[in-house]
Amino acid sequence: MNVLPNETQFAVSFLCLVMKTEESKIMKVRRSDRLIDMTRYLLERPHTLVPLTFFSQRYESAKSSISEDLAIVRRTFAQRQTGILETVPGAAGGVRYIPTIGADEASEFISEMAQRMSDSERLLPGGYVYLTDLLGTPAVLRQIGRLIATQYLDSSVDAVMTVATKGIPIAQSVAQYLNVPFVIVRRDSKITEGSTVSVNYVSGSSDRVEKMELSKRSLQSGAGVLIVDDFMKGGGTVNGMKSLIEEFDVKLVGVSVFAEGSFAGERMVSDYTSLLQIDTVDAKGKNISAAPGNYLERNADLFKELNK
Amino acid sequence: MNVLPNETQFAVSFLCLVMKTEESKIMKVRRSDRLIDMTRYLLERPHTLVPLTFFSQRYESAKSSISEDLAIVRRTFAQRQTGILETVPGAAGGVRYIPTIGADEASEFISEMAQRMSDSERLLPGGYVYLTDLLGTPAVLRQIGRLIATQYLDSSVDAVMTVATKGIPIAQSVAQYLNVPFVIVRRDSKITEGSTVSVNYVSGSSDRVEKMELSKRSLQSGAGVLIVDDFMKGGGTVNGMKSLIEEFDVKLVGVSVFAEGSFAGERMVSDYTSLLQIDTVDAKGKNISAAPGNYLERNADLFKELNK
Repeated sequence: MNVLPNETQFAVSFLCLVMKTEESKIMKVRRSDRLIDMTRYLLERPHTLVPLTFFSQRYESAKSSISEDLAIVRRTFAQRQTGILETVPGAAGGVRYIPTIGADEASEFISEMAQRMSDSERLLPGGYVYLTDLLGTPAVLRQIGRLIATQYLDSSVDAVMTVATKGIPIAQSVAQYLNVPFVIVRRDSKITEGSTVSVNYVSGSSDRVEKMELSKRSLQSGAGVLIVDDFMKGGGTVNGMKSLIEEFDVKLVGVSVFAEGSFAGERMVSDYTSLLQIDTVDAKGKNISAAPGNYLERNADLFKELNK
Repeated sequence: MNVLPNETQFAVSFLCLVMKTEESKIMKVRRSDRLIDMTRYLLERPHTLVPLTFFSQRYESAKSSISEDLAIVRRTFAQRQTGILETVPGAAGGVRYIPTIGADEASEFISEMAQRMSDSERLLPGGYVYLTDLLGTPAVLRQIGRLIATQYLDSSVDAVMTVATKGIPIAQSVAQYLNVPFVIVRRDSKITEGSTVSVNYVSGSSDRVEKMELSKRSLQSGAGVLIVDDFMKGGGTVNGMKSLIEEFDVKLVGVSVFAEGSFAGERMVSDYTSLLQIDTVDAKGKNISAAPGNYLERNADLFKELNK
């Protein structure tokens, strides 16, 4: 008579388990779908606060289930160094996806770029280096965008600024990862820009005075502006953009360029980061020297923090 | 004596179930992580064949589990109209993510754009319309890119071509969704482009002859080229790009513009799609008329196919 209750217990346990397994089967399917769609939704909206109730309604699921989902997404994003899923508590809270790049991936990408840059086929007359193909390749632009956006993850960037033409793809990619607009400064303003504000600047390499313009309605006063460009030598162009920033009564958050070249005189810009340092050594001998810029060094503390 | 074997059965079943549950718990965690990371990986590499063995090694999981994962991703992508997950069978096979947009989402986006465009604040002197803010907003560019890329999902586009400056953000976004390079035609070529090929073209609106150039090394002979631009009136600029395509011995795949304006004379380009039709009616009265372009109509069959 001691055996039976135990057996009944077994039977009950069995039944419970069958039910639980069935339930978890249904839940599992729904959860999978939620995780996939949630991942896509968050990746497409970096730096945007998404309330839990939004997901809860979208997937007709309890907030507790959504919280569990987000914990899984957070863990995977952290493990794979996709970025940080930040939780903002409270009634007005939710989650925010902040794209980042791991130190190893950043360093690998920079090394790969330096190697590709060293190809003597890239050498142009006058000691210039052909970069146009790289700055037209989505996979390369994606990584440049992630690298620069990681750098400013905690800064309040409201807009990315660049000068036409070659800076545009970089600005667009950084803007995408920061999820802010980008504005294009032009040397030749067109009628389709409306009223513009213009400044004169000294081109560092040629010592000529040139003009650059930006559409008047493109920046709101007080905005935080990040300057990006493809290449910096004397820093004249970047300096011109800094003058524009003053004219617009906005704040400079930082300066990041894809590549810098060495400059004989005094550079007009001292506070900047570069992914690469490119120099043409002996244009006759067709040699390009490409090495990592100051990006990794300047962000050493940030990457230490991210790796924790 | 009939009861005991049954009870033993229960016990065994129970034990099995406990083990199974434990196993499925471990599997569940792993599957969740795989689904999240897989989704991100595929979204970042549209139109790229990813072998099953790649995922199998990345997640240290059996190919059968990976196949199951991909079936779930495929289903969710289809349900949410994120795109098609195409399976390529055979030893050299794998999966390929093809981004698409649903007919409803496309139509909603176009309506929203038309509405935002109608704002009289956008009216510029001379009857021009200010578009620069929209073409500098990542969320808007993302949708423009998805719309145009969906149109060419089955065409072999090897490169996207546009003319500086305002076409660039559109070209970059389309190129990202098709995962091909984009090339920028310039009216003023710079030394950093290397040798260029140039053509003269007649600007449709002003009847002036102008010049445009493209870096010689930017296109490989035989490539399929998609032309995109922000705005088309007489079609002169697009026609200039078509001349360049002939010079480069590449193939024109299609022409897609963000917006078209009505043109009094005969348009130089007849085969194109536009997301919007924008006209300024009575510049004095500050009126802009913005309506959907021919995009939805021209792609009606495609969207029927996608909705199946």
